[in-house]
Amino acid sequence: MRESTPVPMSATLAADEALARRRRAGERVLSMASGEIGLAVHPALRERLAAAAGEGAYGPVAGGRALRAAAAGYWERRGLGIDPGLVVAGPGSKPLLFALLLALGGDVVVPVPSWVSYAAQARLVGARPIPVPIVPGQGGVPDPERLREAVAEARAAGLDPRSVVVTVPDNPTGTVASPDTVRRLASAARELDLVVVSDEIYRDLVYDTSAPAESPALHASERTVVTTGLTKNLAVGGWRTGVARLPDSDIGRALHTRLVSVASQVWSSPPAPVQTAAAYAFGEPPEITEHVAASRRLHEAVARAVAGRFTAAGAALAPVRATCYLYPDFEPLRDRLARAHGVHDGDGLARFLSERHGIGVLPASAFGEPGPTLRIRAATSRLYGDTDEQRTAALAAADPLGLPWVREAVEQVGGALSDLVRSTVRPLSPQS
Amino acid sequence: MRESTPVPMSATLAADEALARRRRAGERVLSMASGEIGLAVHPALRERLAAAAGEGAYGPVAGGRALRAAAAGYWERRGLGIDPGLVVAGPGSKPLLFALLLALGGDVVVPVPSWVSYAAQARLVGARPIPVPIVPGQGGVPDPERLREAVAEARAAGLDPRSVVVTVPDNPTGTVASPDTVRRLASAARELDLVVVSDEIYRDLVYDTSAPAESPALHASERTVVTTGLTKNLAVGGWRTGVARLPDSDIGRALHTRLVSVASQVWSSPPAPVQTAAAYAFGEPPEITEHVAASRRLHEAVARAVAGRFTAAGAALAPVRATCYLYPDFEPLRDRLARAHGVHDGDGLARFLSERHGIGVLPASAFGEPGPTLRIRAATSRLYGDTDEQRTAALAAADPLGLPWVREAVEQVGGALSDLVRSTVRPLSPQS
Repeated sequence: MRESTPVPMSATLAADEALARRRRAGERVLSMASGEIGLAVHPALRERLAAAAGEGAYGPVAGGRALRAAAAGYWERRGLGIDPGLVVAGPGSKPLLFALLLALGGDVVVPVPSWVSYAAQARLVGARPIPVPIVPGQGGVPDPERLREAVAEARAAGLDPRSVVVTVPDNPTGTVASPDTVRRLASAARELDLVVVSDEIYRDLVYDTSAPAESPALHASERTVVTTGLTKNLAVGGWRTGVARLPDSDIGRALHTRLVSVASQVWSSPPAPVQTAAAYAFGEPPEITEHVAASRRLHEAVARAVAGRFTAAGAALAPVRATCYLYPDFEPLRDRLARAHGVHDGDGLARFLSERHGIGVLPASAFGEPGPTLRIRAATSRLYGDTDEQRTAALAAADPLGLPWVREAVEQVGGALSDLVRSTVRPLSPQS
Repeated sequence: MRESTPVPMSATLAADEALARRRRAGERVLSMASGEIGLAVHPALRERLAAAAGEGAYGPVAGGRALRAAAAGYWERRGLGIDPGLVVAGPGSKPLLFALLLALGGDVVVPVPSWVSYAAQARLVGARPIPVPIVPGQGGVPDPERLREAVAEARAAGLDPRSVVVTVPDNPTGTVASPDTVRRLASAARELDLVVVSDEIYRDLVYDTSAPAESPALHASERTVVTTGLTKNLAVGGWRTGVARLPDSDIGRALHTRLVSVASQVWSSPPAPVQTAAAYAFGEPPEITEHVAASRRLHEAVARAVAGRFTAAGAALAPVRATCYLYPDFEPLRDRLARAHGVHDGDGLARFLSERHGIGVLPASAFGEPGPTLRIRAATSRLYGDTDEQRTAALAAADPLGLPWVREAVEQVGGALSDLVRSTVRPLSPQS
């Protein structure tokens, strides 16, 4: 019997909605829970969507020719050239990842920690997520040695792992797995006959552009699916558009057929007007690449500043190299946090920051970590301002930390952390 | 072990893409395979989308307040008032139906015949579709007596039916179940403890507006979910927007929680700019209701004219009362079709019309009918013209059949049917 699915609400989206309710109720809250990018839609992108408003027809399930060709061009410029016939567009990369799980069948290896929805999606389709820890400091890629062990054990126990999800660059850690780690993961996947699903939505948000993220598609080209979208680069999460690059191989072509069939039964086609605007964006005209570069610099400046507050407070933190995520480890402060605040785990940390300081973050447990893990994920992408004017000014600023509202938000985090690590016990009462 | 899903491509979308390829190759084809509405986007709707192009944020998983309130108002004007908090919007009613199956769990009763995706979606989530024939001439609603038997048998066999899908008005038959049949279905569902999922996307396309379709939500209000969208009324299938109305009951509230959780993991939120335009449309300002009324009259005129060709050829056809679908039965011509063309079933009929006359229709097997069923579904909504100008002229015409391109399309169908029922055997060769 198929039970009704005990699926949890997406932790990021749930936290976001809860914070929005508190804000509407007049509270001063700082949302660092979801990685939604707090920036206005680029005017050229807005114009492309407006001009496409008359497009009402479904078009092909896999997305129109223009979008698929533009996405293929995007990948070609990154050394990942592909036939546009092997590109599948969908209403977001999240639904594409979900449909891939349905199309692949079997069970799926997920890194620990990893994005909140991989394991939840797997459970939703009746697959069992097989957790494999990352190499410390190299988020998003299951440790290749431990992957071999875990897959062997899983198969011996009757599970059927057929794929492994990787995230390069990584959410939640803000790190980028080294080329060597990615290469070893790709080898292990080939040896174990696993399809690699490489979520590269943060690819263009590596701060040091001279050291881009390495895709496993370079090393296990016959078995790696790459997904991306415009949500992170161009802050249009609400437009719902994503693309998948399927491998040019027998594996890839068979998977393409199944993926398109699943898409035809689940969502029909990606939103048509959005496809037209997305095709323009994936074409990467100069105004778009400049915009992405500016947002990358802004993410770097603010994420590094907030990271500094965490390390100043005594948390351990792998150097953040990409995205707008920090994943500090408060293990060095375990005794002090327990004594001062009764905080013993990520959930306690998140509760403390939310209840006492109106700062929303996510506990490590949301990313599949064991209960006692004393970590939280803080996203810094909502710290750029409360209005489109402020956010656009932040994007244009040579020194965004010089802007009073950005500095104030960073100081709010710093203040909360000072309160957290204060060694004397104080009564838990709300403070402004 | 979870097998990779042997999911077929949506028959309507597959047929549509195949016809589009033939058209691009220079063939003259007439697409009657999918029910995509061949009309231009209403200018006011287009403007609303264009004005919302700057909306890039996700917003709530269930859709924004404005859209949910507008949808609640739409239902209230149809005697189905509901708290907007119980409305869930999604990227199309298809994904909503899919997510409902995941949220409901268990197995699902589907009418025979019924829309191509209900059973396919059920299989995709590991549920078993339990087929129950309709009362003849009253499509979309499983015969309540046979429902009781089928559910009892299914439960005895270890299946776990928890819901029943109905379509009022119906696709593929173009009929509308009587209020009495809907009432009896609702009673049976309550007695059997099944949730009713009522797909009412064709609700506003009942030709006789003095006899609207009856919703099961009026009779089993505590257990009926209603879904709809703008795809059929306003020809914006490519915009991907749909809404679900959950019952105001314990069942409904529990289902709401699960449905929103599933949505959060599968698609995050409906496309934001589209939501704004959809809220305007569900508000039903006069220009929109007039547009829907005009399209209803156009569907009626063309569907009835084509229906006349089918009955003139000798096929049996329940009077078409809504939508743009015809589901003629060639059983009275079985011997003749077998002798003249070697056509024995719906698949053979569809092949004959496609290969010999370039007319795309779907065989009865696509709607879950047994193999030998000598029926096809013909959608008449693509016969309004090849350009937006022609389609808009058809919409405005007092007598659309007076327009040469519409008349020609109808005659093409008539000519193909004459050829089909010709009693002398002729060699099968392409004709123009």
